[in-house]
Amino acid sequence: MTNVTDATFITPDALLVHWQGHRRLTRKVIEAFPDDKLFTFSIGGMRPFGALSLELLTMAVPMVQGAVSGDWETSMNRDPAPKAEILRRWDESTHQLNALWPQIPPARFAETLTAFGQYPGVLHDLILYVIDNEIHHRGQGYVYLRALGIEPPAFYDRS
Amino acid sequence: MTNVTDATFITPDALLVHWQGHRRLTRKVIEAFPDDKLFTFSIGGMRPFGALSLELLTMAVPMVQGAVSGDWETSMNRDPAPKAEILRRWDESTHQLNALWPQIPPARFAETLTAFGQYPGVLHDLILYVIDNEIHHRGQGYVYLRALGIEPPAFYDRS
Repeated sequence: MTNVTDATFITPDALLVHWQGHRRLTRKVIEAFPDDKLFTFSIGGMRPFGALSLELLTMAVPMVQGAVSGDWETSMNRDPAPKAEILRRWDESTHQLNALWPQIPPARFAETLTAFGQYPGVLHDLILYVIDNEIHHRGQGYVYLRALGIEPPAFYDRS
Repeated sequence: MTNVTDATFITPDALLVHWQGHRRLTRKVIEAFPDDKLFTFSIGGMRPFGALSLELLTMAVPMVQGAVSGDWETSMNRDPAPKAEILRRWDESTHQLNALWPQIPPARFAETLTAFGQYPGVLHDLILYVIDNEIHHRGQGYVYLRALGIEPPAFYDRS
């Protein structure tokens, strides 16, 4: 019998592949916005998609960096920036995530820590929170694009 | 040294807890919609949230049932229904997921299968697709609620 407590739903390697697939899709959603709408268009008083994109950037690498080192970066630049600059930061984060991820000792994913000095949780839940928050806000971006008359990229295409 | 290929990001037990947390939040979003808006209100030509909720119901239990048994349920009732009926089906699915999940042999999560006879993938990716699709559409529901002047439930609260 397998001990379910020790069983694996997904490995760290496969989870990073899954996440980077989501990040490729989110990059396409950023690209789909007209530059002049990225920080101006919103619905129902919500934040524009550019602001949401910056939030995602300030969570992904800092979470993984903190998980690796115990140092939590909390000085986050959220000033509006041109789309090309946001995409540049996005690609930079992609490389940083790939470099940092293998440095997390696998046992740590089941350990409890306090992210950014204020969010306690099991590391796997903290990382899923970052990914889920990206999916959540990207879903909002889909509505913004549709409301602007722009067809969003296919949800299932992570190429 | 830990063999990363054999390492665990998250166990099946913890993943179910994570998923049911998301499902509690989605339930609150369904509840937050006025009954008369669930199948009528939309933005940008997208589907109303009631239709999205029915899609989620037709994916969650059928995916896990298929993973357990190899039988894929493809006859899915997507007719509009009153909110109370959708919530009833939601709660029924919650119990079914809890009963079915432990019946998936842990080794199967890393196996490749073809969901619903047409979607090939590694089981962990297929299940994450179902969860991610829920988060994606729920994010759209948040925009609908805001556009209706209704404050959505807090994203971080999974109680």
